[in-house]
Amino acid sequence: MTHLLDAPEAFAEQALQGFCAIHPRLVRAVPGGVLRATATPAGKVAVVIGGGSGHYPAFAGYVGPGFADAAVAGDVFASPSTRLVHDVAARAHRGGGILLGFGNYAGDVLNFGAAAERLRSEGIDVRVLPVTDDIASAATHEIARRRGVAGDVAVFKIAGAAAEAGLSLDAVELVARAANDRTRSFGVAFGGCTLPGAAGPLFAVPGGQMGIGLGIHGEPGIGESPIVPASELAALLVRRLLEEAPEGAGSRVAVILNGLGSTKQEELFVLWGSVAAELREAGLTAVAPLVGEYVTSLDMEGCSLTFTWLDDALEAFWLAPCDTAALRIGAVGEVAPAEETEAERGLAGPSSLPLWPAASPQSQASGRIIAGGFARLAAALKEAEADLGRIDAQAGDGDHGQGMARGSAAAAAAAQAASKAGAGAASVLAAGANAWADRAGGTSGAIWGLGLLAAARALSDTASVTADRVRLAAEQALESVMTIGGAKPGDKTLVDALAPFVASLSAETSAGCGAALAWRRSAEVAANAAEATAQLRPRLGRARPLG
Amino acid sequence: MTHLLDAPEAFAEQALQGFCAIHPRLVRAVPGGVLRATATPAGKVAVVIGGGSGHYPAFAGYVGPGFADAAVAGDVFASPSTRLVHDVAARAHRGGGILLGFGNYAGDVLNFGAAAERLRSEGIDVRVLPVTDDIASAATHEIARRRGVAGDVAVFKIAGAAAEAGLSLDAVELVARAANDRTRSFGVAFGGCTLPGAAGPLFAVPGGQMGIGLGIHGEPGIGESPIVPASELAALLVRRLLEEAPEGAGSRVAVILNGLGSTKQEELFVLWGSVAAELREAGLTAVAPLVGEYVTSLDMEGCSLTFTWLDDALEAFWLAPCDTAALRIGAVGEVAPAEETEAERGLAGPSSLPLWPAASPQSQASGRIIAGGFARLAAALKEAEADLGRIDAQAGDGDHGQGMARGSAAAAAAAQAASKAGAGAASVLAAGANAWADRAGGTSGAIWGLGLLAAARALSDTASVTADRVRLAAEQALESVMTIGGAKPGDKTLVDALAPFVASLSAETSAGCGAALAWRRSAEVAANAAEATAQLRPRLGRARPLG
Repeated sequence: MTHLLDAPEAFAEQALQGFCAIHPRLVRAVPGGVLRATATPAGKVAVVIGGGSGHYPAFAGYVGPGFADAAVAGDVFASPSTRLVHDVAARAHRGGGILLGFGNYAGDVLNFGAAAERLRSEGIDVRVLPVTDDIASAATHEIARRRGVAGDVAVFKIAGAAAEAGLSLDAVELVARAANDRTRSFGVAFGGCTLPGAAGPLFAVPGGQMGIGLGIHGEPGIGESPIVPASELAALLVRRLLEEAPEGAGSRVAVILNGLGSTKQEELFVLWGSVAAELREAGLTAVAPLVGEYVTSLDMEGCSLTFTWLDDALEAFWLAPCDTAALRIGAVGEVAPAEETEAERGLAGPSSLPLWPAASPQSQASGRIIAGGFARLAAALKEAEADLGRIDAQAGDGDHGQGMARGSAAAAAAAQAASKAGAGAASVLAAGANAWADRAGGTSGAIWGLGLLAAARALSDTASVTADRVRLAAEQALESVMTIGGAKPGDKTLVDALAPFVASLSAETSAGCGAALAWRRSAEVAANAAEATAQLRPRLGRARPLG
Repeated sequence: MTHLLDAPEAFAEQALQGFCAIHPRLVRAVPGGVLRATATPAGKVAVVIGGGSGHYPAFAGYVGPGFADAAVAGDVFASPSTRLVHDVAARAHRGGGILLGFGNYAGDVLNFGAAAERLRSEGIDVRVLPVTDDIASAATHEIARRRGVAGDVAVFKIAGAAAEAGLSLDAVELVARAANDRTRSFGVAFGGCTLPGAAGPLFAVPGGQMGIGLGIHGEPGIGESPIVPASELAALLVRRLLEEAPEGAGSRVAVILNGLGSTKQEELFVLWGSVAAELREAGLTAVAPLVGEYVTSLDMEGCSLTFTWLDDALEAFWLAPCDTAALRIGAVGEVAPAEETEAERGLAGPSSLPLWPAASPQSQASGRIIAGGFARLAAALKEAEADLGRIDAQAGDGDHGQGMARGSAAAAAAAQAASKAGAGAASVLAAGANAWADRAGGTSGAIWGLGLLAAARALSDTASVTADRVRLAAEQALESVMTIGGAKPGDKTLVDALAPFVASLSAETSAGCGAALAWRRSAEVAANAAEATAQLRPRLGRARPLG
């Protein structure tokens, strides 16, 4: 249970601020994350890691000399927005290119990937590294679909050391991919976790049972069994990992025995005794094992075991000194405080205030209608928040209601502000879209934001909003959502309502119907389609991982 | 809930072994605790800390250069035995004297105090420092009765740095006492904890409530209230501590914001934001604050805030480098591994095998009777274990049943072994007594052990066990128990049964009754006395803190 909070929606941000206040020697707060407070040489590859909050020490606890240059933090269990990833990474860039590291979750893949695209369009060389260590999350022949868990720490530590050693971006990427290819994790859970402010747990494990391979947001595992003694559990974890040993695996392994939040360190020490014995029996040497909390999930009970099979280079990077809030190895020595770079100065300051393009009175009037639509949408989603969260907790990580409510509220506020400042229809819709993507977090936030942004590109700040433009906007939104999310009709996503809506809108407008009436009729079609999808899950936009 | 274990009775020992296996650079296991694995100069004051297990990082996590030289670990929530404290401290001694640091709990006061006496009798200068930081555990005018909680870490860190700086034992003691005098802690609990292997929690906090000042073993606090937002809690904690500011308090404070086990680090970060604001408002500067898990209580939910008001010397020691598993400050630099000292070699090895004095056949026969008595006692206490634990959980920390069962079983085994090896009555009783004290842990273990040892001194390995000797043995046991425990008849302790027993035995034997019959009659008297003590709590030996 999470007891120490002021307001649930402020939890992640307050936690990050508090963390930065405790460790001014190591980190400083920037919007959406933390940067090293210590100087890094120009030209060094920037290792920027991140993901949702609620997983401390992941990810801010790993920023410092020898490890990451920056961490991006989304809301609790929600991917940071594309803009935040972009901004934090741009601030961390020192001219040597950027490695973006994150766990392989759909939202993170989407947002870090889109941020990478935007950074590249600004002339920065960027590589993305989704970590895929959780062997319970997909079969051996589908490694690229596996989730990232505590293996993040091994992979990012090794990548960070390679970057610190002055390797080029190509080389750092190579080392990081090798580390990921040789990293496997397997875990069990004894109890679920509770989101800040939530009345009940996001997910639970029946008393006396352990969830085998249960994900850190409650994603389905591979089974349940009665809790076994520590020595048996150690044998189980080690055996499963050894079955998954990568090609060319040697006898030296970096090991992380990770507590998920409410599992006592002394319990992990007890388990370690048996894990160490199993390793000896298997002829393996544990190199500088880490036993403690490294990637947590709020107050979840359970543990995971991670192996990275080392070669000489990986072992050197695993053992290299680092100095971060959560992990110190060796002696890093004194490091001068960082100075603000030009790139950072460019990102800060009042120049980023939006200035809306000049708009015609007709388009301004349409903008007011759009802002009103966002407000009604936000009210409806606020009302549905608890329901969406509850349903999502059965299929996903239970944050969908919060994300939709937060995103739509931000969109409504931004659209309202833009409209009041005189923006036209396209700008009002774009303002709402960007705010949604930036504040909602998660996969669905990115998909809603990018979908609405695609719609905005069909509108104008000067021309009237005709029925044809509305149809075009809807078509572009649908295309964007399907492309980004990888979903097609019948996948039980947002598309199942949006596609009939767009088809109806096309038919009505082609038949000469006006925009307002065509919209109303198509909305009814969409509502019926949604009802018809018998067990429509609230996975609006929760598509499969990309790639 | 504690899930990772093999056997409850092995939990503490296995955890310690696992811990040592993870950190061979810093610590090495010795019976009952850990020593630094790194070399310390001859003549340096040894800072030896300890207490029950279940509180990691307290205490083994603080052994290393710049902090403690050794840590003694009892069973879960049970004081280590006198012998273990003695042995670990003797191994850590480097000729400069020893500071024994522990929280002010009756069992620790007793065992560390008795170990200090024994070390002094061996010519080693020893000072004892019971930490008394918990302001909720006794009133301001009774500071010496207060318990030690997370303030342990501030006091021991400062003492360790003073010792590392080469100060004399006198000076280290002075610094440590100054730190303790200026250290205050205050905490709240949202949930209790569960002993390894126990079916239910040792104590609990009603849902939505917080226990104010609740002790880390569930000792009564000063009240309960509904859970408040983090900012209000911060104000409460800071205000109460400031009300308790010591004389001559300045504006610079060492701060520890401590999680009790299942409270998330990110929650502590959220709370820290408000604590820092309260400190600023009060005109105080937080010097190198620690925010995380520093003294835990298994899976207890809650937190405590500790202030140590610094002067220049205390601040220098607080900020001095240290290198331990749980806390690293600054750079300690390379330290050579330790070599085994002569004192250590003396403690180890087969020379410590017991050799029993030659015994007469009559005394050997009496020894067999005593060993049989221990066996019946152990069986009875095994049967009563759950009941004793349950009742103790309401008044104490719930470990009484486990301790009595463990102690009596160890005594029975040792007495049996001694008897089989031909030991006489005095030696068999002494062997059982020592085993009880060594294995039971806690205050009651020490009291039972020392009481039985006093009885053994009235017997002989050659002369017959006469009725007079039995009476004398009982009288000496009673006197020892009352002296050590500080209890008198009517305090609802073991004394309420033992005193009538001894009085009856005296009367019966004076009247010429034989030993066996006098014992049986007196045992009935004692049983009746126990029944008569209406609500006799199982605090057999749980006396007030000494001194």
